[in-house]
Amino acid sequence: MITGTTRLIAHLGYPTESFKAPMIYNPYFEREGIDAVVVPMGCRAEDYPDFLKLVFRLSNAHGALVTMPHKVTTTGLVDVLLPTAAIAGACNAVRREADGRLTGEMFDGEGFVRGVLRKGRAIAGKRALVLGAGGVGSAIAASLAKAGVSELGLYDINAVAAEALGARLGRYYPTLGVSLASNDPAGFDIVVNATPLGMKPGDPLPLDIARLDPATFVGEVVMAEEITPFLAAARARGCEVQVGKDMLFEQIPAYLEFFGFPSTTAEDLRSVARLG
Amino acid sequence: MITGTTRLIAHLGYPTESFKAPMIYNPYFEREGIDAVVVPMGCRAEDYPDFLKLVFRLSNAHGALVTMPHKVTTTGLVDVLLPTAAIAGACNAVRREADGRLTGEMFDGEGFVRGVLRKGRAIAGKRALVLGAGGVGSAIAASLAKAGVSELGLYDINAVAAEALGARLGRYYPTLGVSLASNDPAGFDIVVNATPLGMKPGDPLPLDIARLDPATFVGEVVMAEEITPFLAAARARGCEVQVGKDMLFEQIPAYLEFFGFPSTTAEDLRSVARLG
Repeated sequence: MITGTTRLIAHLGYPTESFKAPMIYNPYFEREGIDAVVVPMGCRAEDYPDFLKLVFRLSNAHGALVTMPHKVTTTGLVDVLLPTAAIAGACNAVRREADGRLTGEMFDGEGFVRGVLRKGRAIAGKRALVLGAGGVGSAIAASLAKAGVSELGLYDINAVAAEALGARLGRYYPTLGVSLASNDPAGFDIVVNATPLGMKPGDPLPLDIARLDPATFVGEVVMAEEITPFLAAARARGCEVQVGKDMLFEQIPAYLEFFGFPSTTAEDLRSVARLG
Repeated sequence: MITGTTRLIAHLGYPTESFKAPMIYNPYFEREGIDAVVVPMGCRAEDYPDFLKLVFRLSNAHGALVTMPHKVTTTGLVDVLLPTAAIAGACNAVRREADGRLTGEMFDGEGFVRGVLRKGRAIAGKRALVLGAGGVGSAIAASLAKAGVSELGLYDINAVAAEALGARLGRYYPTLGVSLASNDPAGFDIVVNATPLGMKPGDPLPLDIARLDPATFVGEVVMAEEITPFLAAARARGCEVQVGKDMLFEQIPAYLEFFGFPSTTAEDLRSVARLG
């Protein structure tokens, strides 16, 4: 029930047709009696810098969920960029502080991390391999570093991207061991595919599956299908896996905390969501 | 249920706390399965010209409900200002046309007119006296002219305001008889108080009640109380009356039509509204 006191969470991206957040957050807000609403706003790239500034000047603006194509641009538009967003080089949440400043954070990687932890697997002190140093791979690497991995392997067919991610990680986590240039999963406790491989039928697997240890936890970011060929192959090796959609739901409690709302579990959000 | 396809009606004003439109339109949209939502946006005057432009560049922007303090400013910000808004000198609705142009209209007066007609009283060919040539008085005068009154009496303690309103009316309705400078209700079929008199206890009545004919229809714009001292006095004279709140609900079907939505009656909107 929207009223004149309802706090506004602008869901900024373009196009809006595939947005899912309103159908997840709003039923939760309604059930909990939280006077806030997520509203899709189809903002084009050329209007975004001005619109972001003005939407946060609204007296009832509370926060923004940021999606394609604005995640990277946002890093340059906020007043305070938190470390995870800085390492990721992308921002998917913005909140207004009491003094009016805008703080940006990135939760894609946090969703991955929470999913792993919820499955009873440790992250602190473990070795993780992140395949793909693009937006989502960088976000996952940043959140794994925050969660305390002892070593991060970074691999991208574009070696410069992996090196740049390694350098950004080093700035915030100087004692973290970073290894580059190999997609060999042997010896890693956690391996995640954050490359686009698996989005198209016939894509090769992102690594040599024969080198994957059954004790390794294997994650995926591709959401095109629940069990991608990579996850199927990992399962066949005996690995425990995490599907792409887990990352989506697991990050929402983190968003709720960031925005200062009462939070809940990913399962609860899944149960109240009206995704149709 | 807000989704990525939901059309956005921005409710623009500041402050937002007293906004009522979301609790009238949204339950109606929900019941009718209309994929649209009215969202309060607390936009301050200094941000308004830029924000109005940008909010209408959103791909899912459909229209705007405009309220204090932006009604007058809006007349200079739209591409097409319809006659009623031009005469009123104020705009409370903006829609985006297929070609991207913004059209502005004013419905406060339309609400008054529809209320009168619904009560079975004629307007076309009748004589009406409008007391107060400010924003709401001008809007009512414009809508009465559109509805075909033969003569309009205009009175304001600021004579210049009444003269200016008369001049604006003359531009669009050159054959309309306009008389100025008297608040004597004798001989008028319709009399409406659009002055602030009645908002504060102890305010004088806006006219000499002894001169009011029992056959005259008497309207009020003040909404502070249902039956103002002026309406009470008119009723005591035997006059049929219209309360301020009727104007509010009667204008909403006109808004719905303007925005291209299926419309309904004011009664139906009242019954579905959740004003608490």
